[in-house]
Amino acid sequence: MFEKTVVDENYVRIPREKLFNFVVEIFKRLDVPEEDAKIVADNLIMADMRGIESHGVQRLKRYVDGIKVGAVNVHPNIKVVKESPVFAVLDGDEALGQVVGYKGMKMAIEKAKKVGVGIVGVRNSNHYGIAGYYSYMAAKEDLVGVSMTTSRPLVAHTGAMEKFMGTSPISVAAPVEGSRPFLLDMATSVVPSGKIEVYRRKNKPVPGDWAISTETGEIIHDPNEILSPKGTILPLGGLGEISGGHKGYGLGAIVDILAGILNGATWSKHVGGTSDKHSDVGHFFMAIDPGAFGDKEEFKKNMRKFMEELKNAKKHPKFERIWVHGEKGFLTYEAREKLGVPIYKKVLDEMNAIADELGVQKLP
Amino acid sequence: MFEKTVVDENYVRIPREKLFNFVVEIFKRLDVPEEDAKIVADNLIMADMRGIESHGVQRLKRYVDGIKVGAVNVHPNIKVVKESPVFAVLDGDEALGQVVGYKGMKMAIEKAKKVGVGIVGVRNSNHYGIAGYYSYMAAKEDLVGVSMTTSRPLVAHTGAMEKFMGTSPISVAAPVEGSRPFLLDMATSVVPSGKIEVYRRKNKPVPGDWAISTETGEIIHDPNEILSPKGTILPLGGLGEISGGHKGYGLGAIVDILAGILNGATWSKHVGGTSDKHSDVGHFFMAIDPGAFGDKEEFKKNMRKFMEELKNAKKHPKFERIWVHGEKGFLTYEAREKLGVPIYKKVLDEMNAIADELGVQKLP
Repeated sequence: MFEKTVVDENYVRIPREKLFNFVVEIFKRLDVPEEDAKIVADNLIMADMRGIESHGVQRLKRYVDGIKVGAVNVHPNIKVVKESPVFAVLDGDEALGQVVGYKGMKMAIEKAKKVGVGIVGVRNSNHYGIAGYYSYMAAKEDLVGVSMTTSRPLVAHTGAMEKFMGTSPISVAAPVEGSRPFLLDMATSVVPSGKIEVYRRKNKPVPGDWAISTETGEIIHDPNEILSPKGTILPLGGLGEISGGHKGYGLGAIVDILAGILNGATWSKHVGGTSDKHSDVGHFFMAIDPGAFGDKEEFKKNMRKFMEELKNAKKHPKFERIWVHGEKGFLTYEAREKLGVPIYKKVLDEMNAIADELGVQKLP
Repeated sequence: MFEKTVVDENYVRIPREKLFNFVVEIFKRLDVPEEDAKIVADNLIMADMRGIESHGVQRLKRYVDGIKVGAVNVHPNIKVVKESPVFAVLDGDEALGQVVGYKGMKMAIEKAKKVGVGIVGVRNSNHYGIAGYYSYMAAKEDLVGVSMTTSRPLVAHTGAMEKFMGTSPISVAAPVEGSRPFLLDMATSVVPSGKIEVYRRKNKPVPGDWAISTETGEIIHDPNEILSPKGTILPLGGLGEISGGHKGYGLGAIVDILAGILNGATWSKHVGGTSDKHSDVGHFFMAIDPGAFGDKEEFKKNMRKFMEELKNAKKHPKFERIWVHGEKGFLTYEAREKLGVPIYKKVLDEMNAIADELGVQKLP
């Protein structure tokens, strides 16, 4: 088994189905239509199932708060602003990001199936959960999927010393013959903020040079400081240009351009959080049909060869094995289908407090 | 002036025009049609003009050798394998990569102008010079441009200890109101191999943790060792996962998928160099029309705001200023238009030896 049955004493395991129904109920009580509630629940729980706890149900409270303060519109009128056979631009009307995101990637997939390529840009949305949820939707349909989103400012670009850019993730997925898809899902910052939250919870310094002080510019390791206004995360590649920090900065800028500016959405430091009115988060979805560019089965076969070759390359003695992207997440998913999803007890308490308030049956 | 008149005593400055005509003559003597020779010369010299010396005329010998050994086809029959209004796949027939690349991006641009998006994949090509040459072609036409290429194996992916993946660059360009375009052009490795060649030439250790030994897996700094079979470059993010090395690895894999496998080209360790028969390099070109997705002038205006905001962010005390992508290259270009292109003397000698052999007038 890929995963130990007991994570540690701070976690309880909840069966996937039970957790899913619980989250759906919460959103329904907040007047979210059932169909939409299921999309959001599926997105959040997929994050937990794949081991991306930072983007899972521990964020439930943020979404609930966003709806409660009226920053998130649960009855959006999602408008198609522009559309052609190959692309579309959607106005999310401040919906839950997952709801617009699901619709956007679905449209991109339909277009790709018809004309080989589909691109859908979104403006006026909210946090859409894990980027990989959408690219994976495409891969399940034997398409290459791309998903990007702007996000609220947490990162200092090269030469800067403030929370300015988002951790703006990029995800790409592609089908593989006889196997789980390739699935890259990465923040363009050196780490996503959720990874720092994990160290804050454990009350431990972060192990890498991931952040700087917004006052001195020095590298800092205290997760509390990093997540406060006194700290800011670095782009992929770190501080300065010596290890390519300007590249992570550039990748973040690409996301601001393609997911934000291109679609009439805002960018970097103007992007709001889930409880902000008009957070104006933008997304970019693309699907490409390998069957249009060439032979689909040949593509999938070559993807399998590529993945196998990567895994069978000459191994570094300090590493146990070589992974391909998505593999760890799928193995974690499969283990958690059997064992249940580990939920941090404090998160469970918070979720049950929400349930109490909304009249939903608490989790065990 | 952005650049000093004299670089150092190892360089001589040659006017752009003179260098261009020289390179065109060389290729013409090798039976490359004049039009194609001009494309290759423009690409190589743009690299030098923008300060990317590693991809400039110092590579002339490689291309010449590739043609001489018959690995590069100077009279290619570039075939359109697949085509629709939105995409195309080209077979480069082992042409000079610049010749196929120029054609590919031109087709993508034409498609984007008609239907909003254009994607052109290429297989069976060769090294295409700087990736930014092609994305910039799109930006000059007020489009967003994307350019990627596979490249010969020089990089050890996370957990591996051999030259396995390419330094596979990604370039994205976008027009900016009243200013030079945004132009990101980055290897997905921590540094491109050309940067290590610069340290080898200076006989100095590389300043960052950019490479490992293929025998022990330890970090090495000797540029000779790194460029020999005993060394291999690391992906962006460095060794292991602590600083996101798996992300650079993932970005490299995306290039192998989109520029390689999608187009029926080969990938990573199978990609050949310029003197290899059937190097089967693959490219990916995309152009997107912001005027189709929304208002073109609004897009360019917001791009300008974004660039200005980035540059005016709170500055880190250890940095002189904050740059946006492409800016350094454009300033260098403008300086070199006045001052001439600095050419390393040994490179000039090599170029003149080629000229001698082919009966082309030597450079001063």
